[in-house]
Amino acid sequence: MNELLYSVTTNAQDHLMRPILTAFKDSPDRGQGFARDMRVRWALEEAGQTYDVKLVTFDEMEQPEYLALQPFGQIPAFIQGDLTLFETGAILLHLAETFPSLLPAHPTKRAQAISWMFAALNTVEPPIVQLEVAHHRETGESWYSKRLPFLQNQIRDVLSDLAKFLDSRDWLLNEFCASDILMMTVLRRAEGTGLLDEFPTLPAYIKRGESRPAYQRAFADQLEIYLRQNPKK
Amino acid sequence: MNELLYSVTTNAQDHLMRPILTAFKDSPDRGQGFARDMRVRWALEEAGQTYDVKLVTFDEMEQPEYLALQPFGQIPAFIQGDLTLFETGAILLHLAETFPSLLPAHPTKRAQAISWMFAALNTVEPPIVQLEVAHHRETGESWYSKRLPFLQNQIRDVLSDLAKFLDSRDWLLNEFCASDILMMTVLRRAEGTGLLDEFPTLPAYIKRGESRPAYQRAFADQLEIYLRQNPKK
Repeated sequence: MNELLYSVTTNAQDHLMRPILTAFKDSPDRGQGFARDMRVRWALEEAGQTYDVKLVTFDEMEQPEYLALQPFGQIPAFIQGDLTLFETGAILLHLAETFPSLLPAHPTKRAQAISWMFAALNTVEPPIVQLEVAHHRETGESWYSKRLPFLQNQIRDVLSDLAKFLDSRDWLLNEFCASDILMMTVLRRAEGTGLLDEFPTLPAYIKRGESRPAYQRAFADQLEIYLRQNPKK
Repeated sequence: MNELLYSVTTNAQDHLMRPILTAFKDSPDRGQGFARDMRVRWALEEAGQTYDVKLVTFDEMEQPEYLALQPFGQIPAFIQGDLTLFETGAILLHLAETFPSLLPAHPTKRAQAISWMFAALNTVEPPIVQLEVAHHRETGESWYSKRLPFLQNQIRDVLSDLAKFLDSRDWLLNEFCASDILMMTVLRRAEGTGLLDEFPTLPAYIKRGESRPAYQRAFADQLEIYLRQNPKK
């Protein structure tokens, strides 16, 4: 994996086959793999596809050049020749068109796997992100502690349903696939809240994912970037 | 469109080609088209595909028979022969495999349209839903009015980016597609908050969607069910 420092003059046409992924130059998660580029890195590692990383600052993410790639000024954006994509779900679906190992081959199973990809992002992730947002922006507010149970119960509602489903399964479908990459990285964002431990099925599921060599390579690569940007931390 | 009252003994195998969609028996939105079955109805109408509707109560949505269709106990679930799907994004993507008019044909444009489908559901919808949740559950709490600007600003952040993107465009891609169905139905959930009117591009965009005959047929069908369940309201 090469690392490219962000440059608006970089011409994506130079990297027609090798995709470029944008990532935080200085990730707020301190390299713990919670930033969303981790999902795409993991999928690329599962597929054995090399890639380049373009690091961006928060200021650069608000510039017109970047917004042309990612209209909401978020990471990651994905650039491959004249194709530019955003949203991790869309990027993983695109990768699955090229790398069949990322989704089941049978049309019915594949459509169900896509249901789980959307469920990770539209049903499970939003309440987890809301707790993060409250933690970052509202910790100092008078209502924070009173409101915490509302936020926690929103998360418990979805974790409880998910844990029931996973109770008799190793993965969401018969075999590991892109749905698990999204679901596990979403669940990891709830680590430290104590909520996952209320549903022992879920930490066990995450551990199965973290034990995959592709996960470990992706994690090490994004941590290395953080440590290089912050040599004294 | 036929209406089927919910029955756990209904055998989906009887409707191999004609899909069945689940919807609220008594929708909390009073038939205003905010419930998520509206997105699938609209897509089916755009495609000219007839379908059946199975109405479910909140109690039925928590039963094992329903959770086998939709693990989070939400509507809609989509049943077609031996295929059961959930999450509106996944259902629309599945429909687009059968009905090419729902997504651009060119692979690059199609992948970008899928980016917008995920953006509608993972970036734009979550803060809008959080304001709804707060409105339903926290209106009586002491912190509600103090916290409102936090929630509103989360929504403004994404609406502002979206409005910039749509400023010079009629639709998200060159032509109307499934991404617009998801984005517009997500935006409609913010009607009544006053926030959309701060970005005049957005109400104009929604109006373009609402003027489509397929939207109007879908809206009328779901409203009719509400009015039939609530003849005196």
